[in-house]
Amino acid sequence: MLIIGERINSSRKLIAEAIAGRDAAHIHDEAQIQASAGADYLDVNAGVFADREAECLQWLIETVQDAVDLPLCIDSPRPDVIEAVMPLVKHAPMLNSITLEPSRLSRVLALAVDCEGKAIGLCQDEGVIATTREQKVAMAERLVEESQKAGFDIGNLYIDPLVYPFATNIDSATATLGAIEEIMARFPVVHTICGLSNVSYGLPKRRLVNRTFLVAAVNRGLDSVMMDPTDAELYASLRAGLVVSGRDEYCLGYIAAYRNGRL
Amino acid sequence: MLIIGERINSSRKLIAEAIAGRDAAHIHDEAQIQASAGADYLDVNAGVFADREAECLQWLIETVQDAVDLPLCIDSPRPDVIEAVMPLVKHAPMLNSITLEPSRLSRVLALAVDCEGKAIGLCQDEGVIATTREQKVAMAERLVEESQKAGFDIGNLYIDPLVYPFATNIDSATATLGAIEEIMARFPVVHTICGLSNVSYGLPKRRLVNRTFLVAAVNRGLDSVMMDPTDAELYASLRAGLVVSGRDEYCLGYIAAYRNGRL
Repeated sequence: MLIIGERINSSRKLIAEAIAGRDAAHIHDEAQIQASAGADYLDVNAGVFADREAECLQWLIETVQDAVDLPLCIDSPRPDVIEAVMPLVKHAPMLNSITLEPSRLSRVLALAVDCEGKAIGLCQDEGVIATTREQKVAMAERLVEESQKAGFDIGNLYIDPLVYPFATNIDSATATLGAIEEIMARFPVVHTICGLSNVSYGLPKRRLVNRTFLVAAVNRGLDSVMMDPTDAELYASLRAGLVVSGRDEYCLGYIAAYRNGRL
Repeated sequence: MLIIGERINSSRKLIAEAIAGRDAAHIHDEAQIQASAGADYLDVNAGVFADREAECLQWLIETVQDAVDLPLCIDSPRPDVIEAVMPLVKHAPMLNSITLEPSRLSRVLALAVDCEGKAIGLCQDEGVIATTREQKVAMAERLVEESQKAGFDIGNLYIDPLVYPFATNIDSATATLGAIEEIMARFPVVHTICGLSNVSYGLPKRRLVNRTFLVAAVNRGLDSVMMDPTDAELYASLRAGLVVSGRDEYCLGYIAAYRNGRL
């Protein structure tokens, strides 16, 4: 299970303030707590800074890399921003993200090929986000085909079926879980990834819904997740979710997490 | 989702003591807290009293029925014990349980037919407990056939695929979850049920494993569960599990549970 730590995102107020004020100590802390909590990659996002996004993301990348030795997940919808920051990145990154929109697809895939990195592929095309299971799987199939055409190793492709808030669209839960299961079965070398915080929008006790959805998704084969690894209950649910999915032989990962005080 | 409250079971020390000492007040409490917590049926078990089982179970049934107006789940492997207590039972009960063992099967099914009650069918035959998904589904199919032959309405059949502790048999998780999904798909009017506490035997933080397994099972279609409804985190997981499984339209059940302080 690959964990991408989601905390260093400018949509969070304290992160935006730290970026604006060039508060390196705050970013160092955010990087270190996620690394200690088991993140494999750290997401970095400076999207709220619109016209200064590239410059802010460059500072963010250098600052995170000063604190920890983890690979990064470069989070921007703009190919020119990803291009601008690539020379600074120390380890082969995950690029977040491609969609089926042609301009974004070809440029970002080319960057992923060049750096031998990973890429997140969203089930989204020009003006269309996949809603049903069938649409999600169909878009996943096209993402796989386009990756292969571009010479990108699909073993490095992480497909995000995209999930809507359950409060307004209860069918999004089953559509997304069904898509995860079908994508993992049809494309065994391809990975699936999901964000969690969106699913509970508009509901009370949001973290309960988020971690419950994670358990169901892991049980359907999800092998990567964008999450806050410092959320103790979420992390414990992930470890237990791997056990009940038969994905933790002899429960060794679960028992180790217990011994490390993580359950 | 049908909840069978599991607390009034003589394998629990305080219950055995209450039965032995004819402590009606303690049993009344146990019945009332489970009724308040949302149990649809209450399990009653006096199995540790071997040669006095029927007599103890009779007292237990009368005592529980004095306290609450819920139907009971008569929990004994012995057809003669079930037969002996049936005249006392006020509401059509759930009989717990039948197996494919011929003597138990025919006698208990006949009782279930007579009282127009429900029956739990274990995926178990003479000296054999189903371990793989295929075995569980095959035994479920035979339970369905035998029920039909006996004139028992299979809409009242609750199949328990039987799950082993994950610590010693990690494959039991996927075998059981797969069986639940397949049974629900192949026999749409038949129900599935599962006990939870067994799965975590030998692991730390057992309640975390139990509730995580419940979420996965609900997501595979489980529509009945033997559980402690007063376990706040377990109940909250059940409510959230129904949401992420698309089984709580507009999340109304979840929101009601929140308003009632149950999340």
